[in-house]
Amino acid sequence: MLSLYQRNKGQMHWFYSQNIKKDEILLENEEAQHALKVLRLHTGDHVHVTDGLGNLFLCEISHLEKKAVRARIIEKKEKYKARDFKIHIAIAPTKNISRFEWFLEKCTEIGIDRINPIICKHSERKIIKPARLNKIIIAATKQSQKAQIPSLEPLMKFQDFISLENQSQKFIAYCDYEINTHLIHLAKAKSDCTILIGPEGDFSPDELKSALNMGYQTCGLGPERLRTETAGIIACNAIHFINQ
Amino acid sequence: MLSLYQRNKGQMHWFYSQNIKKDEILLENEEAQHALKVLRLHTGDHVHVTDGLGNLFLCEISHLEKKAVRARIIEKKEKYKARDFKIHIAIAPTKNISRFEWFLEKCTEIGIDRINPIICKHSERKIIKPARLNKIIIAATKQSQKAQIPSLEPLMKFQDFISLENQSQKFIAYCDYEINTHLIHLAKAKSDCTILIGPEGDFSPDELKSALNMGYQTCGLGPERLRTETAGIIACNAIHFINQ
Repeated sequence: MLSLYQRNKGQMHWFYSQNIKKDEILLENEEAQHALKVLRLHTGDHVHVTDGLGNLFLCEISHLEKKAVRARIIEKKEKYKARDFKIHIAIAPTKNISRFEWFLEKCTEIGIDRINPIICKHSERKIIKPARLNKIIIAATKQSQKAQIPSLEPLMKFQDFISLENQSQKFIAYCDYEINTHLIHLAKAKSDCTILIGPEGDFSPDELKSALNMGYQTCGLGPERLRTETAGIIACNAIHFINQ
Repeated sequence: MLSLYQRNKGQMHWFYSQNIKKDEILLENEEAQHALKVLRLHTGDHVHVTDGLGNLFLCEISHLEKKAVRARIIEKKEKYKARDFKIHIAIAPTKNISRFEWFLEKCTEIGIDRINPIICKHSERKIIKPARLNKIIIAATKQSQKAQIPSLEPLMKFQDFISLENQSQKFIAYCDYEINTHLIHLAKAKSDCTILIGPEGDFSPDELKSALNMGYQTCGLGPERLRTETAGIIACNAIHFINQ
């Protein structure tokens, strides 16, 4: 039998399911529709299914019904492609939500573990639709063939977020701060990281002060003037580069 | 008088003009409309104007007309924030053009010098609209406060592109290549770089072979499976990181 990795190099389709039994997986709703109507899969076809929690299953389609697809589990791989560092970004959602959606898609592709949308003093957006955003994250997880779905946390206030217990390396990206060492020179490899990314108008001086009081360290993301969503992607990418 | 840099930290508006005389600049068409109707600027207001060729002008609005705005040049800065390395990416435009547009916007923000859209064996898109794409590049140049507009070259065939005379470091990002050293471990700092990024179906084995024959070196962009536009952004970002 081919290993999961070898099969993975081909064009096998990826699905997401939360309905996983001992030796069978049920694909439901949109996942079943995609298998039936878009891909037109048949009994006997092999597919990859992830539970979004790090497990990857190689399966064989066993039953096709009108609204559900059953697949027999052939092989299970735990902690599929798990990294030895976690990336956690707390970011102010952009006024134009499509920019925030791009950030979610790109960071999911590059590899991120947790996203905390935060409301800051200069935030222009104070509402998000988690269901839509989670769909984007799940699609990007499948498309980039990952088994772990990044966790999108509920929107919370900046002050509440920085007060949370957090044992990782903690950074605040602040555009105008005078001592602006680049994140790649500050973060340690193989170590979890939390990075705060501010809204279009940046963090307020009070927010910066509060973050410093809570043990956050300022960092830069290079000399260029970046949009919020670009700063988020570059921060995520920087942690991956440090770990190369 | 404040230096350009100090003024730049404030919210002064940026414009682009190709009509620059010895001591006066004319803002035309959309730039004039933006100044008049969106920003509602007045005589005496200070603005930044770039010629897109690396020069930045601090100006004072001197005349407002119906379809044009004249500005007196107060100060000129040549080679504004010029880098000591050039980034040149040759990339296959994506099937969904908005993904390619997003690549152009983000690389302009991060900093890129030249983009060559290329047609590869597995390319699904063989037409682009340069006028629309250049508008996106100019908007991102102004928004990220740069004086040099990246050059978007005409679409050309992969084979023609790699045959061009090119004295920079040359890389081809190839997903499935076995020896897949990350670009950040291969590219040298303070040195110009050209990177080839393939279409959704990657480069063909023949294309890889031709590129190697023309002196290109294979490189990886990390262990993750990336979309074309994400690979382009990560490659651009990697060269910036090397130069930090």
